[in-house]
Parts: sequence; C-alpha cells; structure tokens
Amino acid sequence: MNTNYLLRTPAAEALYDKVVKLPIIDYHCHLSPKEIEEDAPFTSIGELWLGADHYKWRLMRAAGVEERYITGDAPYQEKFRKFAEALSLAAGSPLYHWAHMELSLYFGIDEYLTADNADEIWERANAVIREEGLSPRRMIRKAGVAYLATTDDVIDSLEHHRRIREDKSFETVVAPSFRTDNVLLIRRAGYAAYAEKLSAVSGVQVKDLASLKQALLQRLDHFCENNCKFTDIGIPEFPSHIATDAEADATYRKALAGEPIGDEEYRGFLGNMYLLLGKEYQRRGLVMQWHLAVYRNASTNLFKKLGPDCGGDCVGDPLKGADIIRMLDAIEQEAGAVPQTILYTLHPGMADQLQTIAGSFRNVRCGTAWWFCDHRRGIEQQIEVIAELGHLGAFLGMLTDSRSFLSYARHDYFRRILCNKLATWCDNGEFDPVMAETVARRVCCENIKTLIGG
Amino acid sequence: MNTNYLLRTPAAEALYDKVVKLPIIDYHCHLSPKEIEEDAPFTSIGELWLGADHYKWRLMRAAGVEERYITGDAPYQEKFRKFAEALSLAAGSPLYHWAHMELSLYFGIDEYLTADNADEIWERANAVIREEGLSPRRMIRKAGVAYLATTDDVIDSLEHHRRIREDKSFETVVAPSFRTDNVLLIRRAGYAAYAEKLSAVSGVQVKDLASLKQALLQRLDHFCENNCKFTDIGIPEFPSHIATDAEADATYRKALAGEPIGDEEYRGFLGNMYLLLGKEYQRRGLVMQWHLAVYRNASTNLFKKLGPDCGGDCVGDPLKGADIIRMLDAIEQEAGAVPQTILYTLHPGMADQLQTIAGSFRNVRCGTAWWFCDHRRGIEQQIEVIAELGHLGAFLGMLTDSRSFLSYARHDYFRRILCNKLATWCDNGEFDPVMAETVARRVCCENIKTLIGG
Amino acid sequence: MNTNYLLRTPAAEALYDKVVKLPIIDYHCHLSPKEIEEDAPFTSIGELWLGADHYKWRLMRAAGVEERYITGDAPYQEKFRKFAEALSLAAGSPLYHWAHMELSLYFGIDEYLTADNADEIWERANAVIREEGLSPRRMIRKAGVAYLATTDDVIDSLEHHRRIREDKSFETVVAPSFRTDNVLLIRRAGYAAYAEKLSAVSGVQVKDLASLKQALLQRLDHFCENNCKFTDIGIPEFPSHIATDAEADATYRKALAGEPIGDEEYRGFLGNMYLLLGKEYQRRGLVMQWHLAVYRNASTNLFKKLGPDCGGDCVGDPLKGADIIRMLDAIEQEAGAVPQTILYTLHPGMADQLQTIAGSFRNVRCGTAWWFCDHRRGIEQQIEVIAELGHLGAFLGMLTDSRSFLSYARHDYFRRILCNKLATWCDNGEFDPVMAETVARRVCCENIKTLIGG
Repeated sequence: MNTNYLLRTPAAEALYDKVVKLPIIDYHCHLSPKEIEEDAPFTSIGELWLGADHYKWRLMRAAGVEERYITGDAPYQEKFRKFAEALSLAAGSPLYHWAHMELSLYFGIDEYLTADNADEIWERANAVIREEGLSPRRMIRKAGVAYLATTDDVIDSLEHHRRIREDKSFETVVAPSFRTDNVLLIRRAGYAAYAEKLSAVSGVQVKDLASLKQALLQRLDHFCENNCKFTDIGIPEFPSHIATDAEADATYRKALAGEPIGDEEYRGFLGNMYLLLGKEYQRRGLVMQWHLAVYRNASTNLFKKLGPDCGGDCVGDPLKGADIIRMLDAIEQEAGAVPQTILYTLHPGMADQLQTIAGSFRNVRCGTAWWFCDHRRGIEQQIEVIAELGHLGAFLGMLTDSRSFLSYARHDYFRRILCNKLATWCDNGEFDPVMAETVARRVCCENIKTLIGG
Repeated sequence: MNTNYLLRTPAAEALYDKVVKLPIIDYHCHLSPKEIEEDAPFTSIGELWLGADHYKWRLMRAAGVEERYITGDAPYQEKFRKFAEALSLAAGSPLYHWAHMELSLYFGIDEYLTADNADEIWERANAVIREEGLSPRRMIRKAGVAYLATTDDVIDSLEHHRRIREDKSFETVVAPSFRTDNVLLIRRAGYAAYAEKLSAVSGVQVKDLASLKQALLQRLDHFCENNCKFTDIGIPEFPSHIATDAEADATYRKALAGEPIGDEEYRGFLGNMYLLLGKEYQRRGLVMQWHLAVYRNASTNLFKKLGPDCGGDCVGDPLKGADIIRMLDAIEQEAGAVPQTILYTLHPGMADQLQTIAGSFRNVRCGTAWWFCDHRRGIEQQIEVIAELGHLGAFLGMLTDSRSFLSYARHDYFRRILCNKLATWCDNGEFDPVMAETVARRVCCENIKTLIGG
Repeated sequence: MNTNYLLRTPAAEALYDKVVKLPIIDYHCHLSPKEIEEDAPFTSIGELWLGADHYKWRLMRAAGVEERYITGDAPYQEKFRKFAEALSLAAGSPLYHWAHMELSLYFGIDEYLTADNADEIWERANAVIREEGLSPRRMIRKAGVAYLATTDDVIDSLEHHRRIREDKSFETVVAPSFRTDNVLLIRRAGYAAYAEKLSAVSGVQVKDLASLKQALLQRLDHFCENNCKFTDIGIPEFPSHIATDAEADATYRKALAGEPIGDEEYRGFLGNMYLLLGKEYQRRGLVMQWHLAVYRNASTNLFKKLGPDCGGDCVGDPLKGADIIRMLDAIEQEAGAVPQTILYTLHPGMADQLQTIAGSFRNVRCGTAWWFCDHRRGIEQQIEVIAELGHLGAFLGMLTDSRSFLSYARHDYFRRILCNKLATWCDNGEFDPVMAETVARRVCCENIKTLIGG
C-alpha cells in the first residue's frame, strides 16, 4: 500500500488529489444506528473484521478453514491467524485489497498480512484501537463521512436515529431508509406475527390490502418526519404483472391466514405493491432503490446452523427486462413521472441491458457495482457501462452497502479507480482534462449531495 | 483529436495507414434515399446533430436536460448549447468520441466541445456547412463511401433508388435492403391497412397466408431487380417453433380480421415465415440479416408524446440459443444450405453463444457490434469474440446502422480500433505482422466487397 | 514464439520460471487409453492436427474451406495447406496461439505458419515425427505429464487402463473417470440396447430404477478398484426438480420400453439420479464434475453426414442458478456434505453467478475456463472470477479436455497467463510477491495433487 495505490499515471494521481478530501455521502449502508448511538469502543481487530463479515467468512470457507475458526467458538486471535493465512493466498480478491487499505488507512500498517506476521499485526492493530479508543463514531469521523443512510425496517421506531440527531456533538447526518422487504415477503413463515407488529406500531389494524397500505403509508410518513430520503427493496422476486386491488387483496388475506400462495399470484401482488410504493415515493420526493437478482440462503444446512446473512447468498438468475420495464412504465403512467430511482443488479450480465432500460425513463439511473460485483473489475465495468450507455457525469457514485465501520476504505478504493480511469482517457486524448475534474467531483460527492438536497 | 487517435503504438499507426483510404461499404444503414436524391444542403450543425438522433436525445435526458431543448420547440442553437454542456461531462461515451471525430473530420475543429465554446463552435461549423454547401451527397463523397445499402419497407416503390442509380453524376451505389418487419408485425394496430397497401403495390390481394407469400415474393423480386443484396429483420420477437402452413394461415387470417393472437401462436407464425424467407433468400443469393434482442418503446408516455425511434428503446432479453438453432437448422435442411447470414445481437451477453451457433452452420457469421454495443469496448469485445470463436479474417466489418449523414466517422472509429488491436497482437509476438495487413484490408473492405460480388 | 511469449514483464518471466518444470496433472481429458496402450508412432502432422480435431475443422469452415479438405478424402498434405492458409488469417484465435506453441514445443519450429511456408513446415514437422518416433507415450513424456485422467463410459472394461498400469516402463499414471452421460441420456434412440450392455457388463439385469442403480454402483466400484478419482456429467439437460423413486422408476421403465418422455419428467428423473450419484461420490471420496450449458449437434445436416463431435456443438442456454442450487443443497442435506465438486460452464455469462453458488457450499469450486472459453481472454476472465468471488489460492488449475496428444501445450499457455497476471498484480503493489510464487505453484500443480491424494 503506497499513496499511489491503483493510480497508474501522474495525471491519475493529480486528479485523485482533487477528490480525496471530499466528504463521503454513504447513501446506502447496513450500519447499526444503535451501535452508532451507543458508540462503544471496539475490543480488537478480530471482532472488527471477523465478528459479522460474511464476505470474510466465505473466503475462509473457500480456503478450507474449519468452521470453528469462522463462526465457531475459537478465540478471535486464532480466527485472525486463520484469516491471515487464507487472505495471504487470495490474490486478486477485493478482500485482499480492502483489508490492506483498512490496515493502512485506520492502523498505519503498510505490510502484506501473512501467516507469519499475523500475531504482530494483531498486536499493532489492537494497540491503535486501544490508544485511539476506536469506536463507531470515531471511525465515521476519521473517514470523513458527512451523511450516511442506514437501512431500516418499516416497523422501526427510529429512536436511535432521533437521539443521534439530537446529539449535537456528532456532526454526521445519520438518516434512515425505508426498506419494505419484510412487508413484501408475505410467504415467509411467521408473516402474520410481523403484520401484528406493523399493526401495533402504525396504529392501523392490518387485516387486508387496504389496511396494509394505510399502515405502510403511516410508517412512510413517520420515516419522512425522521429525515428519510431513500427507500429500498432487496427481495429475490420481482413483479411479473400488476394484480388488481381485488386480486392482491385476496392474496394478502391468504398471507395473513398462513395459506400457500403460488409464484405468479405472489408476483402479481408484488406488482400491485410496487406500483403503490412508486407513486407514493414520487409524491414525497423520495429516492426509490431496487436491488435486483439476489438469491439468499442457498445452503439449507448453513442456514439452519447459522441463520441468514452468514455467507450462503449468491447471485440470482437474471430478471426479465420486460418485467422491469412494465413496472417502471406503469409507475410513470400513473404518477406522471418515475421517482428518482436507482437500479442495482447482482448479476453482472444484466448490467448493459439495465442501463439501457434506465435510459428509457427520466429520473432512472443505474447504481454502482453492488455486493459481489464491487471488486475492482466490477467497479471499472460498471463505470464503463454507465459511461457508454448512460451518462457518467450524472452517476451517483459509491456507497458501502456494508455492516462494517471499517468499510469506508471502499469509498477511497472507488475514487482511485474512477480517477485512474478518467485520467487514462485524458492521457489518451479521449477526454477533456478540464472537465475530468468536474466529472470526478460530481461522481464522488456533488451529484448525490444534490439528490439529498444538500 | 489528433491523427493518432485510438492508435497506441507506431505499428498501429502504420497499419491504419494501409486501410485509412479504402472505400467504405456501408451495407446496413437507415439513411433516407429521398434525402440523398434531393440532396438539399444542411442548414446548421444543430439540425444535423439534433434533428433526429435519438442517441443524443437519450444522453441529454440522462443529463437532466428539459425536453424542450431535446425534442421541443427551442431554437437549434439553444439545443446545441444544452447538448454541448451535457456532452462535455459524458466521459467515456461513444457520443463523445463520435462528436469530436465528426467535428474534426467534417469541420476541421479539433477542440473539446464545452458549454464555454459552444457558441463559437456553432458558428465555425455552420460556416463550413455554408461554405462547402454540405449536403447528403457531399457528405457521402467526403467520407469515401463506394456503396451503401439503405433499409426499406417491402412496399417501397424504390423510386428514389432508381433515380439515384440513373443519375450518373453520383458515383456511390445506393442499394435498397428488403426489411420485412412491417409484414411480420401482424399484431400491431392497423395491420390490415398495411396489408391493403401491400396488396395494392404488389397486385396480389392479400387475404390469407398463401396470397401474403405471393405478394411478398413479388416484392422481393422487385427489390432484386433494383440491385438489392441485403435483407433484414429487426422485430423484438423470434420464432419459438415452426407452425404448419395451415396453422400459420389461421393465425394470419386473425391478423387481417384484427383478432387477438397469442404469443406462442404468433411465434409459430414467425417460424413459418422465417423458413420461407430463408429459403427464398438462399435461392436468390441474398444476404439474410437478423437483428436480435431489441425491446422498443419502453416508456408509453414517451411513445405517446413522440412516437417510435425517439430514445425509448432498450436491449431486449437474451433469446434462447435453441430457438435460433432450430430456425437455422430448418432452413439448412429444407434449402440444402443456409443463405449467407449475418447475426447481430443487442444483448452483449449473447455474443459468445451466438458466435458458437454461427460457427455450427456454414455461411453464418456474426456481425459487428450493434447499436447500444457499438462503443469502443463493445467493438473491441465483438472483435475478440469473432477472433476467438469464429474467424477474424472472415469478418465483414463495420456498418453505421445510422440515420445521420455524419456517421461515417464510425467507420474510421472502427478501423482505428481494429488496427490498434491487430498491431498490439503483432507487437506482443502473437500474430504475424505480414498477415495483419491482409486481415485489416479484408475486414475493412474486401470481405464485404466479395459478398456483394464486387 | 519466443521464450517470453505472453509474459509481459521481468517479474512475470521470473515467476513462470518457478512453475515451468512442475509436473502436469491433467485431471480431465479425452485421450484414448487404447492409443496410449498401443503407442503407435504418428505418421504426419496432418494426421496429428487434422485427423480428429473439431476445433480446427470449425475454423476451416468459418474460413470457407471446402468440406473435402476438412473431413473429406483430400490427402493430409492438401488439408494441411488449406489449414495453414485459414490459420494464417485467424488473428486472435486460440488455435493460432496453440498451433504455434505446438510447432515450437514439439517440433522446434518458431515461424508463423502461412500458405507460403506450409509445405516446408509440413516436411520439417514430419521429419521430427519420424526422427523422434513421436508416439502417444513419447508426447506425454515430453510434456512432463505425471497423471492423466481419461473420460470413460460406465460400461468400459478399463482393460487398457489396467494394462498401462501393469506396464512398469511407463511412469505416467493413466486413471479412468466415471462418465455417466450414456446412462443418463435415456431419451436417445437405442437406449435399451445400451442398458443391455450395462446389464451384461455389470451382471445386474437392468429392468427398472432399482436395478439401474445397482448396476451403476457395481460399475462405480469397478472404476474405484481401477484407480478412479474423478467422475463427470456433460449432458445438455440439468435437473429441474428431484423426482421420487416411484416417479423416476416410472420414467425409467418408459425409457427401456422406448416410450416418449416429456421434458419436465426427464429433468425430474435426472434430479433423482444426480442425488444418488452425489451421495455415492461423497461416500467414496470421489470428485464430482458437472460440465454445464452445452448444446450438441446443432446442424442436423452435419450430424447426419459426420456424426457427433465433428464441429456442430455450441454454447447452450444459461442454466437457472436456482436449479443448480437445489441439486447441491439436496446432496448436502442428504449426504451431510457435498463431495469435492468442480463446476464448469460453457456459457461465460454464467461464470460469476456460478462462482457465487460454489462459494455457498463447502467443497464446491469452479473449474478452469472450458472448451469454447479456454482462449486467453476466457482463461484470464475465469482466473479473475475465481480470484474475486472465490479464492485463487484454492483453484485447481488447468486441464486439457482434449482428444489430441499435442494439447499439453495448453498447460504451458495457462501457466504463462497465470504468472503474467499474478506478476502484474505484484508489480502494481496489489499482491505480495512472496506469496505469488506459492499461489502459482498451488494452482499449477499442488492443489490438484492434494485432491488426488498425491
């Protein structure tokens, strides 16, 4: 890790210098507002890196590490050793890049981590954690984060967000995002219990489609009152058609009764709901985010043992473009315009098509490379797709999508990749060096700032 | 823009020098034969660039420009300013590359276009248009086009082609192509009226499948008498099976009666028609072109306001390889051989598979990167796919597929990209520099010349 | 061809030096054990190159060569001339790379092959064949192959393998692989006759599902007794669900009776069989290989004239990820763990998704770029996919999948590409040069050696 990491030419270095200090707007992440509020100092780099990061768990499994050292009861230092050994052979992995950037940026460690130096680096990193009293807020501050949007369930009280907002000593804006997955996953066991919670928190007894929508909009207004700008859906399924209210009502009553619901029926219900949500987001000036093509909990054994979000997810099958078009078109026709919309796909083979769909509707953009795609090649390819089929100057740039307070290094990763690419084009006489700085500033910060009204 | 644009090494420059002056054979475009015949001088670069180019309209929409400055009633100079501003931030866009190549090649302007110099460049470009009296034929001549094939409806009288041919003062061959889309889109509102026109022009009353085929072949012969070598289909659907004549006749009667036709029924009808067309093209020595995986008019609001071809199209879903194979195989079995065939796909994820399908049948080739794919990366990737899975020396090379008389810069774009790639391989000791020139000459001109019997 | 072919920097050359002499473990090929046993010297480079290589036949067809010079009765020297001419224009083709590597490695010829020097190179190569008495075993020895696994039908007696093993003068291990395609292709004409052969060789009368499984496991044990470590399935279809034994039995009885079997029914039968095979492989410590997304014999005319494996195959449609997950998950649940598994796809668009699926199950890895994908770009991309989404240090590396005794040059091709990539990362400060050697040694040899218990 040197300061010119990923920057291949002097022009790239010069361009990066112009954006390195711009504030970070992390408009989609999974950080815990409770942890930000409580701000308890971290205990070790083992906890920080290996406590909950399913990216790292997958890498260790792929390297053949026993589960005891991954999610089991081995002490963190032993887990760290095993991770160091697995990582040291993970050439080309984004985890290799990120881990070394994090060691450098947060801990001042500029060596390659290996089995041999794992214990030494364990000590040095933990010493920094102790000496600097590293905690969620200190990490956020250290990274220069001006705004972050967490991902919150519809029934969330948002009390942590409120208390963080009221604490004037913390200057970073921590806003909630309206994530409707749990409302929409009506075929999941225990859905009725979730609906009961929604009833309780909204004050609307959810007993059919009409009351569901009423409760949902009550929550949406609550989120808006709490500084919410972003919404999100990240479920595996996508609408195949738009059920009428009567059809969707019949489906929803089945869900509350715990009765089985067929695939097509379910996807029609989703269509009805997506249309409502799109219209309501447009009316309130909210940003609509769709995270597409994910398959969750592939291994039943792993899911039964560890639960969700433990490394058993994968890229889903490509969606039909016609389905996505139908939904955007219906919202545009009914609401007059699509709300500001960001589309993400986990399947890289959909990227070109998705960008051409986005380009057929005003206010619709493709987002940055997501999750399994946010390695260097994936980020470069997504920049190219947006540049070639959309408009790079209008790109909203990076987000972390992460549960880890160390992940802000990924914004730096993105900025380096972006600046290197822009500078290469300028060096080759394919882009105006004067405008390159404007594009870089917009993509790294200004476009998203404008979108949140900053 | 300098003369070595896109050429990275001396070997690339040297190779490009060998092909730069080869005549252009533009075997698939959407230029208007009427405009070529009339040859009216252009009024401004605003009209030339922004009058009908839906690529540019999409870019402006993606940049957030108001519709008034795109397709609305704002004066061309104001539109040009807005476009210049949007373009100046469109790093990596093929429009950025093409616009600057066009400024350089046609107008001698070698600066980056920005909001700041938009008015000055407006004046300079318009001065060139006035001074040189730039008109369709002058643009075609200036670009060195020896042959161009327009895209013409089956019912077209081809009178403009005939008169251009008879005018011995214009040396470029302007040939028609037999495009059957309107015949095949039998589920479209107003189809019966189209069939009436076909009856009138062919002299065959179209009232069932047999008379449709008779009328169609009458038109095909008319096209052949008018120097037609190329045919084309570019509809969104593709045959899923091959209906019998009786089945297809029943379907076609529904179409004439304005009755609804189901998806599978329709796709069987298409199979029947594709088989007929393939056989007749083979018999006449015509080239069969299939443009695959397009989705048109995604935004209903945009379509209602502006009509087709206004920037609302996108990449369609990938076709099933098995469907394409079934159709080629049936033609080969019935006709003894597939006609000379060129396959294009708008979905880049189909490219490798499509090339392996082409490679399983004699006379079938994949075409150059098409429409949303004809940016530099797309052109490079398509060259690689053909090189790795087909035979680069047999590639038919570039076409514009364009409605704009300025688009011949794209042939230069392609030649530079091709020469750069070939030269890189030679520089790395991976290809014979002596044969590189032969390959370049063939791909840029000789192969397609051979195909049209030149 | 010079010694630094494909190696771009001194670091790449140095790294390649560390692995160039490592033994080759070719764990999946289609070499003939009979030819290895008999070890008859070759007669000419024409026979070696053009006798059975459908890669080369396709290239010649794409170049427009008449079939007489491809699979017809023209003398080998005439075929060689035609091939030389076609190849000389095939810039960027892996065949171009391999042919020249083979000329260099086996025949000491370091010139580009062209129409002009074809006769001279024909003589020189044939002189080497004569002088060195080049034969299957000499080629294998010359290439440094320590272990090779052929691909063998379930009913194979394995007598050639046994006799090769007993011949202590030949030091290369030649192991069989258990390929179940012919057992599973129950809808093929003549299936009952195949089942009869299986009955005869296994001593179990195959008359229903239970006896099929009994016969199959008898054969599996026979293979295990003959040093089999690898199994393989390469049929076009993939299970869509898992039929019960009763359902699968009903389906199988239809197959034996020559009755038609529907697609879904067939794919349920496959699910039943894949589950059995997965469990039995896991129990015996065998490696399970799935070759996915292939379409065979696209051109009926070509198939009728020449039969299978003659250049009429292509990339199949992408499989549904959900289908692959269902199958792996079922095996894991029933067997407690998935056997060591290697997934290959012929459709490059599936690569990222497939690697994320592999990463969700222990013991599952993606294999190297396969068949139409094993050109340089394809190999590089597959290395990247494994590096980014899997774990490069655990990659099993190259195999030839070839019917040609010359194909061992492809291992050298792979090693050069791998070392060049690793060294580039090190040169750019993105990977630890010390560990790069470890990764290279593991991928080129050690990981697969460990897997076969070496």
